Amino acid sequence: MERRHGLILALDVESGERALEVCAQVAEHVDAVKVGYPLVLSSGISLIRRLAEQLPVIADFKVADVPHVCAAIARIARDAGASYIIAHGFTGYESVRACAEVLPVFVVADMSHAGAEEFITPVSDSIARRCLSIATGIVAPATRLESLRRLRGIAGEKVIISPGVGAQGAEPGSAIRAGADYEIVGRAIYCAAEPGEAAARIAELTAAALAERGREA
Amino acid sequence: MERRHGLILALDVESGERALEVCAQVAEHVDAVKVGYPLVLSSGISLIRRLAEQLPVIADFKVADVPHVCAAIARIARDAGASYIIAHGFTGYESVRACAEVLPVFVVADMSHAGAEEFITPVSDSIARRCLSIATGIVAPATRLESLRRLRGIAGEKVIISPGVGAQGAEPGSAIRAGADYEIVGRAIYCAAEPGEAAARIAELTAAALAERGREA
Repeated sequence: MERRHGLILALDVESGERALEVCAQVAEHVDAVKVGYPLVLSSGISLIRRLAEQLPVIADFKVADVPHVCAAIARIARDAGASYIIAHGFTGYESVRACAEVLPVFVVADMSHAGAEEFITPVSDSIARRCLSIATGIVAPATRLESLRRLRGIAGEKVIISPGVGAQGAEPGSAIRAGADYEIVGRAIYCAAEPGEAAARIAELTAAALAERGREA
Repeated sequence: MERRHGLILALDVESGERALEVCAQVAEHVDAVKVGYPLVLSSGISLIRRLAEQLPVIADFKVADVPHVCAAIARIARDAGASYIIAHGFTGYESVRACAEVLPVFVVADMSHAGAEEFITPVSDSIARRCLSIATGIVAPATRLESLRRLRGIAGEKVIISPGVGAQGAEPGSAIRAGADYEIVGRAIYCAAEPGEAAARIAELTAAALAERGREA
């Protein structure tokens, strides 16, 4: 995906119809849309193709299975029109590789919820180091800027996409200033009265943070 | 599910039509069927309802997300007719609880592939201990009998379901003798020329192992 705004829409809406509507409203202000299992299971996998006509689609399937099942899931996502897939790294290198042989992968290195601290955060750096060579990038939450800065150091030239911006608490632009390449925003856009305007407003902030980082570099 | 045979069919076939056909052939020899994302994504979530008319369905979605997404996935599985859901414990207690509030959960404590040794196996016991109180049981592979025996000790009266039997190498009955309550068999049944006969043959072995354990207890 071309980084114009540094902004990805998490399209966690209830219906396929609403997803297409919001996608059309925000298309010029975001670089990609991220869709998860709740929407895909309830609307059917064919929704991805229709969204992909407007924007690159990241299949946020947090794949966490044995390698041959990972590969099967990635093939279905690719054949449906997704451009990227999100996979967990805690199931090991071979599981991530099975996805990466089919579609570019973002590996979950850390997560935004409190429960991530039990088992994932302690091995975040190891997961990133183990899987980065075969990944397009990693997922690291904007709600943990310390972790994000550390992972930026590990990730080198790889892409970091960062959820947790907006309704989950992080300010737009904050993750990019800490080293993310894209911020992922959901409710602050799709729950807004005017999703297009909300996306435009947030995209200004993420693009400004990108420009700021560019000047510093 | 009523434990008559100690046998669950992993229905990892390619099409919904084939899934229904195999399910009908084996229904009297297995206690439940387990379906995963590849089949559900390609056939549509409504397949679960049709399978559930024949046997209890375990949705093997290896849920590994933030709590509110876990809950959304579990609701879709329940509304589609699934009786159980499989979730990772790696994402923490709250994520498992979000599923458990909707459907009975089996928590993945260990996995059968080599990559599990990187991050999961080192914390298998901790995952089981952390999540067991809210789970119906755990998933522990028949390909690692030492781990299975240890997890049996931790699991107490909770149910253990055990994949890896048949094509993946473990002998039918071996996991039950090591402490599992159900063995999960896929290819050795659905790839057989006569799936019904294969299931009957394997069910004899798992039922015999259950009876043997019953006499010892």
